[in-house]
Amino acid sequence: MDNFTFANPTKIIFGKETENQVGKEIEGYSKKVLLHYGGGSIKTTGLYDRVISSLKKSGIEYVELSGVKPNPRLSLVKEGIKICRENNIGFILAVGGGSVIDSAKAIACGVPYEGDVWDFYLGKNIIKKALPIGVILTIPAAGSESSKNSVITNEDGWYKRGVGAPALYPKFSILNPELAFTLPKYQVACGAADIMAHLMERYFTNTRNVELTDRLIESTMKTIINNVPTVLNQHDNYDAWAEVMWAGTVAHNGLLNTGRVGDWGSHGIEHELSGIYDVAHGAGLAVVFPAWMKYVYKNDVNRFAQFAVRVWNIDNSFWDVERTALEGISKLENFFRRIGLPTTLSELGIEDDRLEEMAYKGTNGETSTLGNFVKLGKEDIFNILTLAK
Amino acid sequence: MDNFTFANPTKIIFGKETENQVGKEIEGYSKKVLLHYGGGSIKTTGLYDRVISSLKKSGIEYVELSGVKPNPRLSLVKEGIKICRENNIGFILAVGGGSVIDSAKAIACGVPYEGDVWDFYLGKNIIKKALPIGVILTIPAAGSESSKNSVITNEDGWYKRGVGAPALYPKFSILNPELAFTLPKYQVACGAADIMAHLMERYFTNTRNVELTDRLIESTMKTIINNVPTVLNQHDNYDAWAEVMWAGTVAHNGLLNTGRVGDWGSHGIEHELSGIYDVAHGAGLAVVFPAWMKYVYKNDVNRFAQFAVRVWNIDNSFWDVERTALEGISKLENFFRRIGLPTTLSELGIEDDRLEEMAYKGTNGETSTLGNFVKLGKEDIFNILTLAK
Repeated sequence: MDNFTFANPTKIIFGKETENQVGKEIEGYSKKVLLHYGGGSIKTTGLYDRVISSLKKSGIEYVELSGVKPNPRLSLVKEGIKICRENNIGFILAVGGGSVIDSAKAIACGVPYEGDVWDFYLGKNIIKKALPIGVILTIPAAGSESSKNSVITNEDGWYKRGVGAPALYPKFSILNPELAFTLPKYQVACGAADIMAHLMERYFTNTRNVELTDRLIESTMKTIINNVPTVLNQHDNYDAWAEVMWAGTVAHNGLLNTGRVGDWGSHGIEHELSGIYDVAHGAGLAVVFPAWMKYVYKNDVNRFAQFAVRVWNIDNSFWDVERTALEGISKLENFFRRIGLPTTLSELGIEDDRLEEMAYKGTNGETSTLGNFVKLGKEDIFNILTLAK
Repeated sequence: MDNFTFANPTKIIFGKETENQVGKEIEGYSKKVLLHYGGGSIKTTGLYDRVISSLKKSGIEYVELSGVKPNPRLSLVKEGIKICRENNIGFILAVGGGSVIDSAKAIACGVPYEGDVWDFYLGKNIIKKALPIGVILTIPAAGSESSKNSVITNEDGWYKRGVGAPALYPKFSILNPELAFTLPKYQVACGAADIMAHLMERYFTNTRNVELTDRLIESTMKTIINNVPTVLNQHDNYDAWAEVMWAGTVAHNGLLNTGRVGDWGSHGIEHELSGIYDVAHGAGLAVVFPAWMKYVYKNDVNRFAQFAVRVWNIDNSFWDVERTALEGISKLENFFRRIGLPTTLSELGIEDDRLEEMAYKGTNGETSTLGNFVKLGKEDIFNILTLAK
């Protein structure tokens, strides 16, 4: 186990009807908020009205900025920064999934910063302060509701880049599983793939002696595997949704990577995919991750065998551990297919004519590598994308 | 799953030599600290010197209060409150295990309170503020390093009572597994029983649909079961100690009881035991818990069977689930014995002449019950203590 520091201050408010507390939760921070959300779904479900009513009860003024898209855009972030400055806004409330939250985080750190907010995403500067943000989560997926990270897409060149800083932890996140009842099935499945990917990025490590976190990750994966098919069949099964929603947050709040180095190569490759093709992040991950696994599993067959046995209940082939390892990968692919996700680029509608371009961009023009479990150069990324065809 | 709120702000600083950061961590809070510890062990190991050196480097003055005993006493807490007030102390540094930390928490909330600090432990008043505290942990056991709870013994009548409040979360806790290398074996075993008990108190619940937390608790139990025998045989095995130490904190930081109601009956009974007989808390729990299990398992045989199968790898007897359940209890007892703990009152040197008195005190003179999984009245407690003879 490596030395580590862990602190996650986000207050989680979990359960039925908890969105009605949002005004009260904001009261201590500011009387003027930016209400940030995506499309109109929060209006059709009635969530919007409940949020407004709670804000009004607490005497909180709000300015709205909607229109966040999946793979949230830098241009909207800049608009948000401008609105916050002009209106002297002191708090950002994100109502939505990971894209809305990540966009809110970008606005939050952009407001007090004199330079271009994209600097942070390019690593040119470090986030020291940000407006406080709060979250009402509607999609279990990104884990951004209790993370310090934000991923934004710059339309100028379609670069998708991430940043992390303690100032970006939401002050609170309201998690009501009922809010997920109305999600389209494909979005549910994409969210599940995102959560599984967060767990697997942490799981596949070269750090030795990480038994507790190995087991905690396995537990969280099993919970996702067990409950996602249920919510796909019974969209209003509160108990199963509660498992999925809480697992999605636990997957990404920092606890499960304490003392270990995660991989994050598949996320890096997927960012190139969804940066160019604007596919759903979870769908991209369902395509990239199994290909990545097939490409790298020989780096530590035992770890892949442990994944197969403990997560997928496969009988270990003691005299052929590689077979066990491969069965685990196959089970993961089957799971993705079973919940309705693509597992190849062609199913995503992506041709093979830009694989090299993605490999080139993913390594910043062959100046860097992706991932830690195995360091991937341009050729490796190209090979993985080829395996994913 | 029940509605819940979860927030744990304690910053964990984990790993080798991390105690040398303590001065830096305190700098932002106060320039004058109460250095609170137990006996002389931190001096013989050299820890005391390293702490003093770090404090001096950061220009932090300190006043010492040592002498904390297991089952920490109200009289020392009151002395600490007096010292803090007289010396205008702004931060309390606890160097030790759960007793030292709990004593520090009691002092911390006592300093700004005008009444008697024992009021909080009797539930006569609510803790609203407290001095900030920091921790250097030397014993993986109580989990107090990342909890909001404190348990103190009032020598006037030997009452042992607990309290919890957000103000009692340590600002930081430094966890260096190396500091546990010199612990006596019996103390290691008692710590392990305490950690297992924290996990089991959470595990045995009547709340339905708590799959994620069930699995997370099982993972943490398995880690303890797998690593405690190793550290008993190899006192300087850093990797195994790291698992035990981190598991001990995760067991009690609040995550594993999100959305579920824990039991805490065994803790309540043990408080009566160690209140009167001053036995080690962990040893008392190793005696009480198996007896409690035998008394209550019929309340939910399936939960006990799940415990047996998932935690102890017992084959389920599908046509005789009770047998599975009982095998799990037996495995737990064997584990306690194997690591050198008593599992009966007589092994603890306790006669059966005061069982009724303990049952009476545990129910506050038959005015209340203990536990949630099964509500225990005076007669139940007496019966459990009788089973533990």
